[in-house]
Amino acid sequence: MQDTSAADEIQDVLTGLGEALAARDVDRALTFFAEDCYWRDFVSFTWNMITLEGQDAIADMLRERLADVQPDDWAPDDTVPARQDGAVTEGFIRFSTSVAHGYGYLRLRDGKIWTLLTTAQDLKGHEEPGSLSRPLGLVQDEQIGEPTWTDRRDAERAELGVTQQPYVLIVGGGHSGIILAARLRQLGVPALIVEKNERAGDNWRKRYKTLQLHNPIWENELPYLSFPDNWPIYMNKDKFADWLESYTNVMELNFWGGAEATSARFDEETSTWEVEVERHGEKVTLRPKQLVMSTGSHARPTIPDLPGRDVFEGIQQHSSEHPGPDGLEGKKVVVVGSGTSAHDIAAALAARDVDVTMIQRSPTYVVKPDSFNKHVLGALYSQEAAANGVTPEKGDILAASFPYALFFDVQKAGVDKIREIDAEFYEELGNSGFLLDFGPRDGGLFARAITGVNNYYIDVGAAQMIIDGRLKVASGSGVKELRERSLILEDGRELDADAIIYATGFTSMKGAIADLISPEVAERLGEISGIGSGEGTDPGPWEGEIRNMWKPVDQEGLWFHGALIAHARSYSRYLALQLKARMEGMPTPTYRLEEARDSSLV
Amino acid sequence: MQDTSAADEIQDVLTGLGEALAARDVDRALTFFAEDCYWRDFVSFTWNMITLEGQDAIADMLRERLADVQPDDWAPDDTVPARQDGAVTEGFIRFSTSVAHGYGYLRLRDGKIWTLLTTAQDLKGHEEPGSLSRPLGLVQDEQIGEPTWTDRRDAERAELGVTQQPYVLIVGGGHSGIILAARLRQLGVPALIVEKNERAGDNWRKRYKTLQLHNPIWENELPYLSFPDNWPIYMNKDKFADWLESYTNVMELNFWGGAEATSARFDEETSTWEVEVERHGEKVTLRPKQLVMSTGSHARPTIPDLPGRDVFEGIQQHSSEHPGPDGLEGKKVVVVGSGTSAHDIAAALAARDVDVTMIQRSPTYVVKPDSFNKHVLGALYSQEAAANGVTPEKGDILAASFPYALFFDVQKAGVDKIREIDAEFYEELGNSGFLLDFGPRDGGLFARAITGVNNYYIDVGAAQMIIDGRLKVASGSGVKELRERSLILEDGRELDADAIIYATGFTSMKGAIADLISPEVAERLGEISGIGSGEGTDPGPWEGEIRNMWKPVDQEGLWFHGALIAHARSYSRYLALQLKARMEGMPTPTYRLEEARDSSLV
Repeated sequence: MQDTSAADEIQDVLTGLGEALAARDVDRALTFFAEDCYWRDFVSFTWNMITLEGQDAIADMLRERLADVQPDDWAPDDTVPARQDGAVTEGFIRFSTSVAHGYGYLRLRDGKIWTLLTTAQDLKGHEEPGSLSRPLGLVQDEQIGEPTWTDRRDAERAELGVTQQPYVLIVGGGHSGIILAARLRQLGVPALIVEKNERAGDNWRKRYKTLQLHNPIWENELPYLSFPDNWPIYMNKDKFADWLESYTNVMELNFWGGAEATSARFDEETSTWEVEVERHGEKVTLRPKQLVMSTGSHARPTIPDLPGRDVFEGIQQHSSEHPGPDGLEGKKVVVVGSGTSAHDIAAALAARDVDVTMIQRSPTYVVKPDSFNKHVLGALYSQEAAANGVTPEKGDILAASFPYALFFDVQKAGVDKIREIDAEFYEELGNSGFLLDFGPRDGGLFARAITGVNNYYIDVGAAQMIIDGRLKVASGSGVKELRERSLILEDGRELDADAIIYATGFTSMKGAIADLISPEVAERLGEISGIGSGEGTDPGPWEGEIRNMWKPVDQEGLWFHGALIAHARSYSRYLALQLKARMEGMPTPTYRLEEARDSSLV
Repeated sequence: MQDTSAADEIQDVLTGLGEALAARDVDRALTFFAEDCYWRDFVSFTWNMITLEGQDAIADMLRERLADVQPDDWAPDDTVPARQDGAVTEGFIRFSTSVAHGYGYLRLRDGKIWTLLTTAQDLKGHEEPGSLSRPLGLVQDEQIGEPTWTDRRDAERAELGVTQQPYVLIVGGGHSGIILAARLRQLGVPALIVEKNERAGDNWRKRYKTLQLHNPIWENELPYLSFPDNWPIYMNKDKFADWLESYTNVMELNFWGGAEATSARFDEETSTWEVEVERHGEKVTLRPKQLVMSTGSHARPTIPDLPGRDVFEGIQQHSSEHPGPDGLEGKKVVVVGSGTSAHDIAAALAARDVDVTMIQRSPTYVVKPDSFNKHVLGALYSQEAAANGVTPEKGDILAASFPYALFFDVQKAGVDKIREIDAEFYEELGNSGFLLDFGPRDGGLFARAITGVNNYYIDVGAAQMIIDGRLKVASGSGVKELRERSLILEDGRELDADAIIYATGFTSMKGAIADLISPEVAERLGEISGIGSGEGTDPGPWEGEIRNMWKPVDQEGLWFHGALIAHARSYSRYLALQLKARMEGMPTPTYRLEEARDSSLV
């Protein structure tokens, strides 16, 4: 039920804030904010993706942007009930700017704004079609002699990238690239995906056979086209791969499979990229205005350069090449690593009675899927959330509503709760010799992921195998060297092995940039992703937003896109709007772009 | 808004009726029915698809079926507001039987039941998964070593029809066959489609290039997977074809393309069909328990056997072979026929300045799409209907809620309204020499379709071309014979022609049965489809339901399925439930099956 007092409280603050902003009275506007406050903005106020931490930062932004943005029409979105819990009142909100329809989330503490999220959802005059604004599509009267849908689609396939240049070139056609292309299609932005693999979905299809999406279906929705209601909550990777392929087809995306971008050069004079692509062995030069890197975090396998790799006589595979357990029965297998892939691969082997040992150098965060869904994802992505009006799109807004400054604390609350509920499980697992932790600052899975380390596992069964001793773990030590039929650990232990599977992860997009564009540009941009937490592989200084992703970077016409399906779905909207605005020649004054550029030089 | 008095009125009648039925008191139950009353049942009471006309027929059915059916839990479905208009109160209802969850529609006149629709939606214990009952899908714990989704899917593809026999064989993989297969998949009924064409969707893909779905998108939804919200209201045939192909893939249907059933024999001893199939030239024998004919009304083109067909020196094409106007510029083309294909093809030619004449032997019903949508389809299938809770599934229930006995009158009401609104248009078109009518008993498009004649056209522009004289019509006379470069009409007119396109329709499934099974079975079954109206090509006696379709026929294990997308979507549910019940060995006592068999011998 709608909590009317909560809705009223939000309405009151929005009215007051709206009036102050309309009067361009920044001081008055600040009176609605708490001392400790955060304003996160995606595109709507800043043409950037940033978080303003504290009243001073907010005041600076408003002084610079208010006259241009002309925010108006602030109102609660009453399709989802506002909520009040203790001192905190929160709810979804709508607003508008001079050029965009805005949506966001407001969180009051003791009646003052604690967190505010503002996002642009549509550019005025360029709204996406949908529901009541579906295109008619009917070919009638004087259009009858015109080219049909098929004629136009065939012509586009034949011409785009050949005689017509795409406005946007997306390098990498995994789920992220596909999602972005779908959004750009709706916005009428000519876009082309180039993807090394042959078929859409191959980035999933080619992984080990037991891989499944460890997040529930609601989190993995793609824009525009919902999964069928009767589909399982958890999907095998090939089912999702087939979905991606069908999606690419029915959403009319321009997807070049078997096409690899080999070099890219930005021509400053024409503000155009020159991208060399090998398409089925044939060289093609593309000249897009905008280049989106969406090669993902799984494009470049990392294999540790261990002494003796050439001496070892058995099988050596990176996890990305490992097809699954078939054929390894009766062998001794060592899996190097202790993230999700390592657990999945090792468990699939152990289930076939392969003698398998996982080498766990550093601690892993493990969580049971039910607990994770209930206490971490449930409010955002679940059947219950959807029934309460929190569709995956609104879940994305809610997920973005907390600034990264509060991220670890928010995550820790869920992690702590689960730790209490599953105490017995964690005790048993800890007693097995497995190195367990709860992520950086006890922030669990997402805290680990955001800080660039993938040592986490949503436990679908490997933990019990470890507890039962069916899956052996050699923990606390890395691999020192390989011998003909064994591995020597740093602590001196020797493990016999017929096969070694390196579940040792992938390198970041930084290397891809160096190779594709130039080491200079890669160096200038600095870290891609990370928030500057100083945890894991995420160096400081504090940034408070994901670095370089989905927003202008220190290279004209270059953009970064990727991450989990949910992130790609959520953030692709803002990236697509920024690209659309540039194509339409709209002014896109980017607040704090220079500052971001400076800091990236550090 | 919910009209509470309407809801209360429905609740009162349902309570009274429910109590009488629970007491097995047929006489008391009858007191709730009006003198003039209809009870249409799909599977729930009768394991049949029939309409009981009048109190006596209803009493007979109840006396025979009540003890077995045990209806209960009658209640209004308050997710869609009940409505009251004058003497009539109406709304969606729920109920249950001993074996099924029921859904339906009730229409009261002066407080008594005028029309009642009862349908089975799910068999108890065999409910379709969905929303809150999604399968988990997570492979965990002891399942880890089991075959994956991909292993199982690959095995099914390799084995079904080869080492494993499908329970149901669907002959014909157009939209109807695909929709049925999707439903059977959800119910766990092993089904295989054999389709002459190579790819799913080819039945649409291979038609003339300007073909578009003339009904709006809401009417054309397939089960389980909604079209994207941003798709056009009207779809080109190839877009829909691609959707069908993707649907077949993601819904995990077993679809053999390039496979033609050449003969089928029912083995009485084993109650199994023996179906010979040619699959890519290779002969395969399939042994399903159930055989569904879904070859559609477009499988066998009809070309009139005109004198001089071998003398004519130009191009002759049936509409199903006609690719579109390309290459016919500057020619004289005659289109024989005046249904939708004839209009579409002729208009596409006229738009390219081809000299085109349509030969219209008998009158055509023409309607403007906006008027048709507003006054005929709008309440069932539209954005507005969906916004009011009338999803396409509920639209199907509403569409079925009127018995065929009232069908012509109901249709006429919409047709008359449109006739008034578009009076000027009809006058102009009539004055052009075009033969116009308003369908059998002035029932318009659906009345014409149900009576087996396709002389109707949703006007997307040909009418104005006719009025303007850009598209010539030779009306009131058929073709008598062909000469080397001309056609002679029955009234003696001669039309020069470089090409003749026969938009002369298709033959019914009757011939397909004779060829595939035997002339005897075809003879025994009598007419497939039609309601016995005595109009068009629909001979009497009055049946009051579509003959032989979606229900047991006078041949064990044989079923007929097809029609418009909306019909196929709606009725496939009931066919699927009947097949599922048989696979599970549930008793399926079919009310009035013998009677149907007798009448089909007439």
